[in-house]
Amino acid sequence: MRPDGRPANRTIVFRDYLPDTNQLQFAVDRRSLKIEQIAHQPWGELCWYFSDTREQFRLLGQLTLVQEGQDDPLLDKARQVLWQKLSDAGRVQFSWPEPREPRAENEAFHPPAPDPNMPLPQFCLLLLDPVEVDHLELRGDPQNRWWYGRSQDDPTQEIWSVQAINP
Amino acid sequence: MRPDGRPANRTIVFRDYLPDTNQLQFAVDRRSLKIEQIAHQPWGELCWYFSDTREQFRLLGQLTLVQEGQDDPLLDKARQVLWQKLSDAGRVQFSWPEPREPRAENEAFHPPAPDPNMPLPQFCLLLLDPVEVDHLELRGDPQNRWWYGRSQDDPTQEIWSVQAINP
Repeated sequence: MRPDGRPANRTIVFRDYLPDTNQLQFAVDRRSLKIEQIAHQPWGELCWYFSDTREQFRLLGQLTLVQEGQDDPLLDKARQVLWQKLSDAGRVQFSWPEPREPRAENEAFHPPAPDPNMPLPQFCLLLLDPVEVDHLELRGDPQNRWWYGRSQDDPTQEIWSVQAINP
Repeated sequence: MRPDGRPANRTIVFRDYLPDTNQLQFAVDRRSLKIEQIAHQPWGELCWYFSDTREQFRLLGQLTLVQEGQDDPLLDKARQVLWQKLSDAGRVQFSWPEPREPRAENEAFHPPAPDPNMPLPQFCLLLLDPVEVDHLELRGDPQNRWWYGRSQDDPTQEIWSVQAINP
């Protein structure tokens, strides 16, 4: 969501789950517009369409941004691990010139490779913790659709219910 | 956008442009959650990723819903034409049981084929009229990105500007 109340939508790369959780991980640049958008509205919905199986998954969840200087040692570690897992080409993007500024000279996009063990301050880990999943299967006659909801009664436990619903 | 302020995200099928305009057309069921979401916030952003060319297009625009009984004869006609262009399998979905209710029996999904010349009241045409386009080309070293903005000074004319920006 943009701070002006209009939605924002983009493609992002799924970077595996936070270990031992259902939280999805993404790599985000602190200079991107996502940061102020998440500060304004910490909810997002992912939409995944698998063209081979013709399935759509919609995952609504709460967003957590893990920045440099994170207090929680597990999250701080997860940020470091994700940085290490990125390719050199992935890491160097965080040293590129300021996003959305007028296009810089090509040389500015070839800075020295960042240290693979030391995340740049621009690098953030973004987590999405799903509370609703809408799963649509276009194959089949008729289509199939299931709605998964996570109980909000006790946030320390993950209790999910599922219902077959009309597409 | 959901009325509670959280975003909503789904895959939709592009159904060509409204003739002689830059407005994108989509087929929507009046019983779907989109309807109340659009009533609450008539802005949306489309995100298109082309995996072969590794290009992303983000199109922010205003949404217009064209329902049965539309006063504007051009829009009423466009709704009728889109209905006619749908396949039988596409049209019959508008006669399916109420979306999101507990799953109905299979027989309920095989009603008689609707009249191809007479749109069902459930059938709506949705238009998105872009005002901003963010075009990212991942191919190339470095990546390329362009931002297109439509002047809001005179809404009767489409005056666009473009700027090459940092990815």
